[in-house]
Amino acid sequence: MIVVSNVVNLSPNRGRPTATAFDTLLGLVSDDLEAVNRTIVAKMDSPVVLIPQLAGYLVASGGKRLRPMLTLAAAKICGAEGQRQVELAACVEFIHTATLLHDDVVDESDLRRGQASANAVWGNKASVLVGDFLLSRAFELMVADGSLRILAILSHASAVIAEGEVLQLSTANDTETDEAAYLQVIEAKTARLFAAACQIGAVIASRPTVEEQALEQYGLNLGIAFQLIDDVLDYSAAQETLGKTVGDDFHEGKITLPVILAFRRGDDDERVFWRRVLEDLDQDDKGADLARAQALMTRHGALDDTVKRARHYGDRARDALAIFPESPVKSALLDIVAFCIDRAY
Amino acid sequence: MIVVSNVVNLSPNRGRPTATAFDTLLGLVSDDLEAVNRTIVAKMDSPVVLIPQLAGYLVASGGKRLRPMLTLAAAKICGAEGQRQVELAACVEFIHTATLLHDDVVDESDLRRGQASANAVWGNKASVLVGDFLLSRAFELMVADGSLRILAILSHASAVIAEGEVLQLSTANDTETDEAAYLQVIEAKTARLFAAACQIGAVIASRPTVEEQALEQYGLNLGIAFQLIDDVLDYSAAQETLGKTVGDDFHEGKITLPVILAFRRGDDDERVFWRRVLEDLDQDDKGADLARAQALMTRHGALDDTVKRARHYGDRARDALAIFPESPVKSALLDIVAFCIDRAY
Repeated sequence: MIVVSNVVNLSPNRGRPTATAFDTLLGLVSDDLEAVNRTIVAKMDSPVVLIPQLAGYLVASGGKRLRPMLTLAAAKICGAEGQRQVELAACVEFIHTATLLHDDVVDESDLRRGQASANAVWGNKASVLVGDFLLSRAFELMVADGSLRILAILSHASAVIAEGEVLQLSTANDTETDEAAYLQVIEAKTARLFAAACQIGAVIASRPTVEEQALEQYGLNLGIAFQLIDDVLDYSAAQETLGKTVGDDFHEGKITLPVILAFRRGDDDERVFWRRVLEDLDQDDKGADLARAQALMTRHGALDDTVKRARHYGDRARDALAIFPESPVKSALLDIVAFCIDRAY
Repeated sequence: MIVVSNVVNLSPNRGRPTATAFDTLLGLVSDDLEAVNRTIVAKMDSPVVLIPQLAGYLVASGGKRLRPMLTLAAAKICGAEGQRQVELAACVEFIHTATLLHDDVVDESDLRRGQASANAVWGNKASVLVGDFLLSRAFELMVADGSLRILAILSHASAVIAEGEVLQLSTANDTETDEAAYLQVIEAKTARLFAAACQIGAVIASRPTVEEQALEQYGLNLGIAFQLIDDVLDYSAAQETLGKTVGDDFHEGKITLPVILAFRRGDDDERVFWRRVLEDLDQDDKGADLARAQALMTRHGALDDTVKRARHYGDRARDALAIFPESPVKSALLDIVAFCIDRAY
């Protein structure tokens, strides 16, 4: 019962250029990224075997390593030398992984990147505690790096992420949530870490504030676009491509932009439907309610317009990089914006 | 069905001198502690109302503020001037509160300090996320203080706490756990934060390493003694005094020193009993199994000897302070050891 949006192109030929954009960025930072992976494995080690076990499961289950790649690329565009960006990119990934672990507890999601989520395998207890360990270990690594400026940026991002997750909890199942409140949530819970991951590249290279801010704005807007598309994919992607359960957000009654647009553009009957399924979580178990939600979104152009919103933030991300001279890394960072918007996973 | 140990004196007259010891320490740091409380309230503020709501609930529900008091007293014994210790003591309390919040999720305990635990009121989700917020906010405050040395001490303590909690998870329900493994858990999950709370007092005052180490050892040994007594009280205290459910550890199958001693000193029949109730968690709901556990502990002197072990660590804590000249704060820190061991709550 998956309705494919006519904007998010899921045909076999889609994504060719953007997949190349990802590979291009990957190619530019691959040596450093391998070093990041080695750092991750080394620093999550602990005599308490459950820690490398569970953390190793997350590392092996992959993920795109998009955030640490952004740190490495941002450091490169700023001409950073040395290896500080490697350890700091690992910190960014640790903070992200800790968030995922705690988010899995929170969301009771069954799938994460197409595999059973860590908490489904090891239980909520282990997920909470190993997440705490990774977050604390990230701070230890930052302290070892020794830059108070970077510590300030990442500790603030970490507090904002938690704040955003709590805010999301408060707005959950509330169909009155508006676009502004939704944007506030996704900026905090997703985009702030993208912003920090990019910004610290300029700090590592001791570049002027204007470059720090440019990279921060690039990351922030890219992160917003990224999350908007994530929320579209939750209603439109083929599960085998997405690697997550389509309808997760729906089943949890999460209020995302596709819902907000469809709800506000709908008539009274439709709003009664949305309230029943998302506020009361009274949903049929055969998928008919999900199919109706998808049909309403299509009718009101809610998915298409969410992608349109994402393109707006993508444009802002690209323009933020205008102050940097042309270079292969700059091109890759510009192209990665389209990759995030057009991705099928 | 509460069996009162003959070592932990719960008579109305008990604790008089040690209650005074607590009051004495409180009196010596009360101005600073009020400033700590104001900092806690100010720094847990957030436009996301659930955060001050939930955090405020924890603050109002009290707790003894023992850890921040230790930071303030350690700073005082080292002759620290200024107000840095106030914000850093608040950080210590934030780290502790975050641990409590996550521990409540983990332990599914119904009572915390005699009131419904935060997660019973707001749910696991909010507890995990507000805990994350408090931990991140603690790091933000430390970064604002600007001492990389203190950041190193507290970020390491925070990682060790999480490691200890995961270790505890691994040894849970395993009656083969020995005293050494148990000590490793309580040192990590409890004593390391006591140690760090005291140690940073010397760092604030820029005192030599020998004083830092002395305060660290004082805190570490005090923390071990504190946790040993906590584990005794879980089998012996009157619930209204303790402010927590007697038998919590038993019902969860937690392997604490009283269990370890009783299990190892018991005969085969008794070990069959311990395995049934703590490994299989096959317990009657009328309290007869808990009563039998308490009776076995009394028969084998397991509670008395756990208190004896606590006294050993208490002695080491006191001796660690020998290098400091006599002063009212030193006396109070010495007396607080007895308070922690003899406390009825």
